[in-house]
Amino acid sequence: MAGETKTVQVALSERSYPIDIGVGNLGSVGALLEQRATISHAVIITDTNVSPLYLSATQTALQKTISRVDAIEIPAGETSKSVAQADQIWQQMLTLSADRKSVVVALGGGVIGDLAGFIAASFARGIDLFQIPTTLLAQVDSSVGGKVGINLPGAKNMVGAFWQPQGVLIDIDVLNSLPDREYQAGLAEVVKYGVILDPDFFAYLEGHVSDINARQPDVLQRIVARCCELKAYVVANDERETTGLRAVLNYGHTFCHAIEAVTGYGEFLHGEAVAIGMLCASRLAERLGRIEAELTQRQDALLSQLGLATKMPALCHDALIAAMQRDKKVEHGRLRFVLPDRLGHVELVGDIAEADVRESM
Amino acid sequence: MAGETKTVQVALSERSYPIDIGVGNLGSVGALLEQRATISHAVIITDTNVSPLYLSATQTALQKTISRVDAIEIPAGETSKSVAQADQIWQQMLTLSADRKSVVVALGGGVIGDLAGFIAASFARGIDLFQIPTTLLAQVDSSVGGKVGINLPGAKNMVGAFWQPQGVLIDIDVLNSLPDREYQAGLAEVVKYGVILDPDFFAYLEGHVSDINARQPDVLQRIVARCCELKAYVVANDERETTGLRAVLNYGHTFCHAIEAVTGYGEFLHGEAVAIGMLCASRLAERLGRIEAELTQRQDALLSQLGLATKMPALCHDALIAAMQRDKKVEHGRLRFVLPDRLGHVELVGDIAEADVRESM
Repeated sequence: MAGETKTVQVALSERSYPIDIGVGNLGSVGALLEQRATISHAVIITDTNVSPLYLSATQTALQKTISRVDAIEIPAGETSKSVAQADQIWQQMLTLSADRKSVVVALGGGVIGDLAGFIAASFARGIDLFQIPTTLLAQVDSSVGGKVGINLPGAKNMVGAFWQPQGVLIDIDVLNSLPDREYQAGLAEVVKYGVILDPDFFAYLEGHVSDINARQPDVLQRIVARCCELKAYVVANDERETTGLRAVLNYGHTFCHAIEAVTGYGEFLHGEAVAIGMLCASRLAERLGRIEAELTQRQDALLSQLGLATKMPALCHDALIAAMQRDKKVEHGRLRFVLPDRLGHVELVGDIAEADVRESM
Repeated sequence: MAGETKTVQVALSERSYPIDIGVGNLGSVGALLEQRATISHAVIITDTNVSPLYLSATQTALQKTISRVDAIEIPAGETSKSVAQADQIWQQMLTLSADRKSVVVALGGGVIGDLAGFIAASFARGIDLFQIPTTLLAQVDSSVGGKVGINLPGAKNMVGAFWQPQGVLIDIDVLNSLPDREYQAGLAEVVKYGVILDPDFFAYLEGHVSDINARQPDVLQRIVARCCELKAYVVANDERETTGLRAVLNYGHTFCHAIEAVTGYGEFLHGEAVAIGMLCASRLAERLGRIEAELTQRQDALLSQLGLATKMPALCHDALIAAMQRDKKVEHGRLRFVLPDRLGHVELVGDIAEADVRESM
């Protein structure tokens, strides 16, 4: 293992948990789980992309401390976040004699984290969950904070729960196996943290573009740890999105979810849609006189240097607006957006005119 | 409305809620909900048995304070507690433009409470829930305590959550429309509270058999309120079944669930299986030298006077034992039972020999 493991604590009183971020630390997962709970049965849930790469190493590591380790493999891709797939896994859990003392180990990207997390939240009314995120997106975003869920036709994450894991293990080494496109998509959420919460971090990213593009492990470990810290801070102060603070994480996401919904969740990776969504939101903030054009330009430049497309694709605006109306964050039909007022600070802004939204796309 | 409404408070810090128990108080549900939250959209979930009797009155009462009131009606019966039915309701919620600020109103018996409760726990990662239990069983048991869920093939309540309602309204008057068989089944859980927690209450039941059988409203209001108090006490001290206290509520239930599973959840009403299960558990306690035969006889006599069958039906004992092994309360294969050691007190007893279990059936 190269270098030291960094630990970020997510402070949620009796639901607090550590995120261990290392380089080459996958083999320590058995010991890590043992520290957190007495476990004699683990069910790894993974997908057809991740399984050939990391399932065997994860099984071996878990078997060091857990007597019974099973694995459930599902088809890779967003379409697996369905009621039908969840139903199948619930029944497989039963077949594997999983019970209240079993732990679900989510080994994969955001789809696996969300789906396996929902299985853990609902099987036997909720069992322990341990996350091993294997994409950059999952490492900096979906594995932290306890949001789990599946999609309904036309409505992403519409069925789910807030379910905190017992712990998260992040191995920076696994990012080496990510295709460029998926790696770059993850960087969109990284940039987001700078815009919404931390101008110094944004500047650090601007200063380390070539290291980031070369996937330099120390730089990545630092970046992932900072993103986890920022997300942990937000989640600790607004676990269930009730105070409004957690909403800042949705910067760019109202546009993003609309783009994903209109294109059937297939054309764009989530991070790609986030990048475009952030620029739409930034332009909307400009139109409303909240920021100068320079802030939009800095985001555009950084995202472009990190390999992300920043231009809004040619999609039907009526369909996009209709999709926004179905977003979970809409309250009784009123459009609301998370918009910056300066670098490192955003606010939830309500009652925005549809015309302004259309112009910013 | 005859007499005064009694209120039982379920003390769960920020998730605390009141249970209002009255006679003829269904019309006050709109006002009650208004006290608890600002709501502009309610979705009543009910079934084909309850809908013709109480849906219209509930809608009228809700419309006094809530601008948009929708209703979803599902087929009556345990088979509706399925993944397929939940999926259908999730999609109907979407069609009704339900969002995070909508409230689910569960109007019905235990099946509706469990299913609608699970919808509330999972839709948009969890929305408000209000319960109006319309069977005696639901009034004294399933509407209190936040256990919600659906069945998997062969495994009852295997998918679910702990999800506390914002409030519960109990109208004793609705019990008049219950068929005798269902009313009597509910009384089994009433008797259970006496055995597990309150010898005076057990004696009160023994002294009021004819009033109970005549469904005398004041006696029923007192009985339902006492059951809710006892369950609220247990739930407040062990919300998620972690300290072991909550397990006392499962007296008779390991046998009961096995009987229900082996007969395909159709032959016996839940309460009927509870009555038989309690007597099995009591005989098991006798065999283990924990109690005298007199305590089993008192339970047998009271249950019989209340119209319940107390004899174990002729079922395959191997199948019953196998079903017990799949029970959620089993931890890694070891059989455990809640057994009395005196009237008003039970304990969770582990590592029980299969032979003793077979003999007590």
